[in-house]
Amino acid sequence: MILLEERVRRDGIVREGGVLKVDSFLNHQMDIRLFEEMGKEFARLFAGENVNKILTIEASGIGIACLAAREFGCPVVFAKKSRTINIAGDVWTSRVESFTHGRTYDIIVSKDYLTEKDRVLIIDDFLAMGSALSGLITLVEDASATLVGAGIAIEKAFQPGGDMIRSRGVRVESLARIKSMSVENGIEFC
Amino acid sequence: MILLEERVRRDGIVREGGVLKVDSFLNHQMDIRLFEEMGKEFARLFAGENVNKILTIEASGIGIACLAAREFGCPVVFAKKSRTINIAGDVWTSRVESFTHGRTYDIIVSKDYLTEKDRVLIIDDFLAMGSALSGLITLVEDASATLVGAGIAIEKAFQPGGDMIRSRGVRVESLARIKSMSVENGIEFC
Repeated sequence: MILLEERVRRDGIVREGGVLKVDSFLNHQMDIRLFEEMGKEFARLFAGENVNKILTIEASGIGIACLAAREFGCPVVFAKKSRTINIAGDVWTSRVESFTHGRTYDIIVSKDYLTEKDRVLIIDDFLAMGSALSGLITLVEDASATLVGAGIAIEKAFQPGGDMIRSRGVRVESLARIKSMSVENGIEFC
Repeated sequence: MILLEERVRRDGIVREGGVLKVDSFLNHQMDIRLFEEMGKEFARLFAGENVNKILTIEASGIGIACLAAREFGCPVVFAKKSRTINIAGDVWTSRVESFTHGRTYDIIVSKDYLTEKDRVLIIDDFLAMGSALSGLITLVEDASATLVGAGIAIEKAFQPGGDMIRSRGVRVESLARIKSMSVENGIEFC
């Protein structure tokens, strides 16, 4: 998606250690006009798939998921990163390793909101090592829901997550795929 | 807002200890059509205030904030609950006590995204004791931004947060104000 690639090129900041800072428009401050265009693109890519639920993970996936859900006309469910006293009853759960934060955590979705009747599109802001996406896919499989695919804003295609998930037979559509990036040479897209 | 009150009455579940469970449509599974109507109502209430930024807090405020921001044509900034390695540089910070989770945490917004040029509308899903809202107001004040007001989905008007915030001179608009609720007698709105 040219619009997103241009925005990443213009406002993204590459840091040492493979960090891409896009918090001016994607995951701290959020450009809703951009999200709306991204939502339309996901709706175009997954048209005819009868998506009736979008699954994402707190916190930075929620905004993109909500604007996409508006296009699909379906609700969003977001996986929570820790059990709270307001989530009672049975939950689907899986384990996610965060390389950004250097820790492992459990993600949780209530069984009430992810069932075998759902045709699920997973939406997230980043795909790098694939741990969060893999955890979300496990939730969908455990619920015996149908996984339509995954819509990602930015994929770090030089990291193994995308290939790993696609090799499991999952359709992954990333709106901007970064082939390489460095502080010296900037960002190159696939 | 009748639409939201009716939804709370229909799908909200009152639990012992003053807990209102609305996670089927508001803060776990999210009804985007409803959020869109709530966004339009906030836009009507704060019309002419030249809001150029919506501030919320992760995670359950983000969805409502994004659909509201679409109506205002402005970006959303969400306060994060812990410092991550991807947030570098100077931040505004304040302390929030969570009665739901029984702990205290810091909330953080980058100084890049909250400045004296901003006319800020705070959006959140719940107002009860007012601790989260109070923390967000502190961020706005510290940034010398202009606080237009706060737009809340559900206010527990029998708890002191709303009165406390309004007594500080802040305009608070809650779409559904609960006067009383109990497992035995259900929910009564103001």
